[in-house]
Amino acid sequence: MKIAVDIMGGDNAPTEIIKGSIQALKEINSSLILVGQEKVIKKEIAKYTNNFKNIEIVNADEIITNEDKPVQAVKRKKNSSMIVGLDLVKKREADCFISAGNTGALLVGSLMRVGRIKGIDRPALAPIYPTKKGFSLLVDAGANSDCKPHNLLEFAVMGLIYAEKVLKIEKPKIGLINIGIEKGKGNKLINEAFSLLEDSNLNFIGNVEARNLPEGLVDVIVCDGFTGNIVLKLTEGVAKNMAVMLKQQLMNGIVKKLAAFVLKDVFKNFKSKLDYTEYGGAPLLGIKGAVVKAHGSSNSKAIKNAIKYGEIFAENKVIENIEEMISRMGVDKFE
Amino acid sequence: MKIAVDIMGGDNAPTEIIKGSIQALKEINSSLILVGQEKVIKKEIAKYTNNFKNIEIVNADEIITNEDKPVQAVKRKKNSSMIVGLDLVKKREADCFISAGNTGALLVGSLMRVGRIKGIDRPALAPIYPTKKGFSLLVDAGANSDCKPHNLLEFAVMGLIYAEKVLKIEKPKIGLINIGIEKGKGNKLINEAFSLLEDSNLNFIGNVEARNLPEGLVDVIVCDGFTGNIVLKLTEGVAKNMAVMLKQQLMNGIVKKLAAFVLKDVFKNFKSKLDYTEYGGAPLLGIKGAVVKAHGSSNSKAIKNAIKYGEIFAENKVIENIEEMISRMGVDKFE
Repeated sequence: MKIAVDIMGGDNAPTEIIKGSIQALKEINSSLILVGQEKVIKKEIAKYTNNFKNIEIVNADEIITNEDKPVQAVKRKKNSSMIVGLDLVKKREADCFISAGNTGALLVGSLMRVGRIKGIDRPALAPIYPTKKGFSLLVDAGANSDCKPHNLLEFAVMGLIYAEKVLKIEKPKIGLINIGIEKGKGNKLINEAFSLLEDSNLNFIGNVEARNLPEGLVDVIVCDGFTGNIVLKLTEGVAKNMAVMLKQQLMNGIVKKLAAFVLKDVFKNFKSKLDYTEYGGAPLLGIKGAVVKAHGSSNSKAIKNAIKYGEIFAENKVIENIEEMISRMGVDKFE
Repeated sequence: MKIAVDIMGGDNAPTEIIKGSIQALKEINSSLILVGQEKVIKKEIAKYTNNFKNIEIVNADEIITNEDKPVQAVKRKKNSSMIVGLDLVKKREADCFISAGNTGALLVGSLMRVGRIKGIDRPALAPIYPTKKGFSLLVDAGANSDCKPHNLLEFAVMGLIYAEKVLKIEKPKIGLINIGIEKGKGNKLINEAFSLLEDSNLNFIGNVEARNLPEGLVDVIVCDGFTGNIVLKLTEGVAKNMAVMLKQQLMNGIVKKLAAFVLKDVFKNFKSKLDYTEYGGAPLLGIKGAVVKAHGSSNSKAIKNAIKYGEIFAENKVIENIEEMISRMGVDKFE
């Protein structure tokens, strides 16, 4: 397998992206295609190694930044690392593409340059959601703010296959985020999606209330992208805020200072459990190629993990399986 | 002022409701009307006092439970403590009604028995959302799963007035929950609501991302009831889960056990900060009378606080102010 990496995308590009790529090479069987400004890439690699085995460099002069408007950027910056990388997937010169760059541009670019899986109306972003038990997969986390019921059914199919093939979860349980567990609760979208899921042969266990999401009751959490993005960001915000508040309270008194000292590694452990960059990036499910969005603030470790999961994503015929299942279920009738 | 209390509603009814009511009497100027089964009420009161000064009992034999379907319950259980209490508000025999009972039934009952404020299309549930700075008001937290843009404008007006008059916040800042801060982000509903809010003379500061909600950037958080309910419940779930995980990690080793011991009161402090029952109940804004929903699992302290805030709600012409502002803004054109 060949995995292409966008060296110029993300808050810590290019340094951490290169560092993570070099680290990943020791843990994967694939070779890497580093996409970006050749000079910059060569200079960064020289920090770590002179050995270019399993490393190919594809030059791309332009950079899509976070400030760029997605559609405009994709249309105008054809020689950007992101677009050149996506084209490698399109041309099957790469089996997977990883980028920590502009999420909107990556989504639009994937749609315009690589295209959708037949039968999938709307691709979705599917990051890991950390839970007490480990993690769930959250689909959609923000690619589609306004959804139709059949989009949620598609998210369920795509999430199911990714959970099985890449995350190696047996018989993944699928749940719908709702404001009550009974059928009939919630908004019109969720109610209609509930009926579609109920009638499917997926392992749909029903509604899950937001308060139970951190317990990890289901493996694949299905929702519209607006809700999913709020769930992901709020979880991050509450956890961060809670840690800050606890630390503040620990700063009073000497005994508490001692406790704070002891707690340092507890906090660290805990933080790593909540840090979804640990599990690699989020796949853009529904694209006719393995495209992975790494977190914008990815460090080398996050990039390394994104590449590792990207390899599993590319190796396991996820796209073919989605296409096959969607066709078998007749979900493509909605398109 | 006279404040009516639903003695039979909530998980801890009637014991904790009566206890909280008796406690409240020492801290308020109003008298109380206790609504429910007279025998039960008298027996419970006898535990605390023989003094019936400022206490009136209104008998109501039936009880609406959490298992009752809202519309059915409101129509059939006309002699329930909830409906009798709402009728007291309707007839102006009580200035406020507090219930910890079935939320859906209280909402439907308020609409059917007390009615809406002129110009308000959809009443909303507005609980306190705990933040680092103190709290924000969250409107709507679940009364309306499907909203139109003008509903969100109404929520903003109602939240603004409640924040000013009851929570005593000067010039409350209003924000819209969205998945990005820039105008144009998010779904259709939020985008149209953004335009309405921007054109209003409210103190609208723009979108707020879910991750920043715990920081308390705004005083009034506006959203549809589906989103609001998820925000409230997820915050509860993440905080609870995080506390459990930290405690588990603290149970390893003797030094950590010491730290856990020291941390006990820190956790307790912290929990109380996150416990929104501390701030009393959530008003049903938009109803033509002061109706307050106390948390279903309210203990006596929560009930006492709900009554205290209920008194401020009733005393400060919140309803008249909402009606006046809605009319002045011409928002009633949407109705």
